[in-house]
Amino acid sequence: MTKVNGLLTLTTDFETRDGYVGAMKGVIASIDPDLQVVDVTHSVPRQDIRAGSLCLANATLSFPPGSVHVAVVDPGVGTKRSAIVAKTAHYYYVLPDNGLLTHIDQVEPVIEVRRIQNLSWCRESISNSFHGRDIFAPVGAHLAAGAVFEDVGPRQKRWVQLNVPRVRRDGDTLHGEVLDVDIYGNLITNICKGSLDGADVACVLVDGVELSGLQASYAEVDEGSMLAMMGSRDFLEISVNGGSAAARLAVHRGEPVRVLLKTNG
Amino acid sequence: MTKVNGLLTLTTDFETRDGYVGAMKGVIASIDPDLQVVDVTHSVPRQDIRAGSLCLANATLSFPPGSVHVAVVDPGVGTKRSAIVAKTAHYYYVLPDNGLLTHIDQVEPVIEVRRIQNLSWCRESISNSFHGRDIFAPVGAHLAAGAVFEDVGPRQKRWVQLNVPRVRRDGDTLHGEVLDVDIYGNLITNICKGSLDGADVACVLVDGVELSGLQASYAEVDEGSMLAMMGSRDFLEISVNGGSAAARLAVHRGEPVRVLLKTNG
Amino acid sequence: MTKVNGLLTLTTDFETRDGYVGAMKGVIASIDPDLQVVDVTHSVPRQDIRAGSLCLANATLSFPPGSVHVAVVDPGVGTKRSAIVAKTAHYYYVLPDNGLLTHIDQVEPVIEVRRIQNLSWCRESISNSFHGRDIFAPVGAHLAAGAVFEDVGPRQKRWVQLNVPRVRRDGDTLHGEVLDVDIYGNLITNICKGSLDGADVACVLVDGVELSGLQASYAEVDEGSMLAMMGSRDFLEISVNGGSAAARLAVHRGEPVRVLLKTNG
Repeated sequence: MTKVNGLLTLTTDFETRDGYVGAMKGVIASIDPDLQVVDVTHSVPRQDIRAGSLCLANATLSFPPGSVHVAVVDPGVGTKRSAIVAKTAHYYYVLPDNGLLTHIDQVEPVIEVRRIQNLSWCRESISNSFHGRDIFAPVGAHLAAGAVFEDVGPRQKRWVQLNVPRVRRDGDTLHGEVLDVDIYGNLITNICKGSLDGADVACVLVDGVELSGLQASYAEVDEGSMLAMMGSRDFLEISVNGGSAAARLAVHRGEPVRVLLKTNG
Repeated sequence: MTKVNGLLTLTTDFETRDGYVGAMKGVIASIDPDLQVVDVTHSVPRQDIRAGSLCLANATLSFPPGSVHVAVVDPGVGTKRSAIVAKTAHYYYVLPDNGLLTHIDQVEPVIEVRRIQNLSWCRESISNSFHGRDIFAPVGAHLAAGAVFEDVGPRQKRWVQLNVPRVRRDGDTLHGEVLDVDIYGNLITNICKGSLDGADVACVLVDGVELSGLQASYAEVDEGSMLAMMGSRDFLEISVNGGSAAARLAVHRGEPVRVLLKTNG
Repeated sequence: MTKVNGLLTLTTDFETRDGYVGAMKGVIASIDPDLQVVDVTHSVPRQDIRAGSLCLANATLSFPPGSVHVAVVDPGVGTKRSAIVAKTAHYYYVLPDNGLLTHIDQVEPVIEVRRIQNLSWCRESISNSFHGRDIFAPVGAHLAAGAVFEDVGPRQKRWVQLNVPRVRRDGDTLHGEVLDVDIYGNLITNICKGSLDGADVACVLVDGVELSGLQASYAEVDEGSMLAMMGSRDFLEISVNGGSAAARLAVHRGEPVRVLLKTNG
């Protein structure tokens, strides 16, 4: 991996109101005041590991190589789930081993995972309910400050993976689903460019609605109309120009989406 | 304009939850990790260009000369609206050309606008739905890092202006309106000190309520009482001491406000 | 006190939407662009001084010695309440004198308080409704940049203290109450380790529910079950494993909590 660059990002579901995030930032500044700390978000939907995993995949890959990403969505704090650091080609991820790595691993493959056991990198007194402050923030800070990755603890061969729905092809039909709904109400599916295999899209079907072809931008349909396009995350998205597809269709994560491909004949 | 100072601010309606803001910050850090990135807000009401424009006017003028302000409230992303950089006496504003400049232009006049066409300052692959990450953040970062303004693209003579309600004087009566409602429920009107032209205020009328004169502070009326005063933005505001004027009156942006001036006779 | 370290934190109830926080950050950067500004939160419940005071106690003590903490929850802005700087062994707190210091003072005792009167440290024009921008941010910035504490204004012997509920012991029963409810619905009580005086806990009673003993972590009870444990703030907390105790019991701040101690006989 590239050398660390002194930049550390934070992704949590803590909101900021109670001061938990502030406590984490204080711990980091106390270990190395010269680190650059960047908030990704503290508004991951509460204890929603999948949303946290998707947010990491959406946000962290644009950071410069050598960044350390700390993520805490941790319903299992205080259980036997391990606390880990994952190394990829460009980054370190410091997080609970509960599936938060899942979507990163698909686009920025995990090379090596180590279990956090080096107590000298942690807060002197470790609570059973706030590992963000006591384990993840200080370990992230030590790494970002240049500590040796291998010193964090022993190698761990496996890590928790969420079930990721695969796109299934059946003749000229792709069977996918809604992976995520963003704050604008765009439906992000699990169908990427690669899934199309070079074919053109005849139509997209979701919740009984048929959308013909892929548009290049929202503006290609009238205001208030629904459309399908390749979104900024490189997945097929279903949107309403100037509105919310999620509100229009009342669909959720997991909703089936079908794509009919044009036949070359 | 003053030389850039390495500080770049962000104002968007993206919220932070989905990681879109994180992706912008990563792009900026990848261009120049030494830039100082300051969050103004990511909670502009969704796709509300006027609110974004008012927020810029309220927040950005206190920054040191040479700051670069990136603002993205962009319902027209992917349409033919242009992406621009506006130069004022003290700042650069990097934003979609959709009216976001309107209220800044009134207090910090725009000197020159250029259309963003220099693709070498943009993300290699530009999506049609996320110009915050692909255009505005990287262009802001290049400018803040010292790139030459004129290199961003050709001059654009006009830019979109929202309709700004003017205060009209009719004898001793000023006819204004509510410009903005802040999170405390204060009603910020479009009536500034200059509108009064040195005259004293006899009373303020809004939604059938008559408030006598201007108070110096909330505390000049009883808790729970309504008052009018010159607010921190130097506009006349209508407030409830310890409460919300917006909740009390159920008025919105655009609500007429009349000020009766004292006659000097 | 330790020498200042150039780090300044912000805790307010302003939310970020209207640009008020942005204006404060601009003022700070204009005074000294090299200061490191850290957001603790801008989501303190509106005008809730006690919540702000608890947030400061939860968040600020992990910062490195020499940090300056600016806090603005200020329903009395524009009244005769004073604006103060409090010095503790490790920090400066810059805030309105309205009780915001209360919970800090219990764990990081206030050594000296001075009333802000040095106008050369404030904004040239001071509004009556936004002292965050006009007084607290610039005074905090001057202090963090190395200005002499004693120059801020004259000593003030007393400062406002909120009423803090004390734990009362009656035989083997401790009478405490709910001090705070966090975003997860955990009930943070005012019963700390010291209150137990070395005794073991037989059971905890709240709102008619009896919880036997203290658990070491959420995971010691079944998912969905309620428990009592020593929380990350070192106070007894009442939680639901994987849920919200506040939602389950519909209790609020001030709700009585009793702890029965085990007798040593």
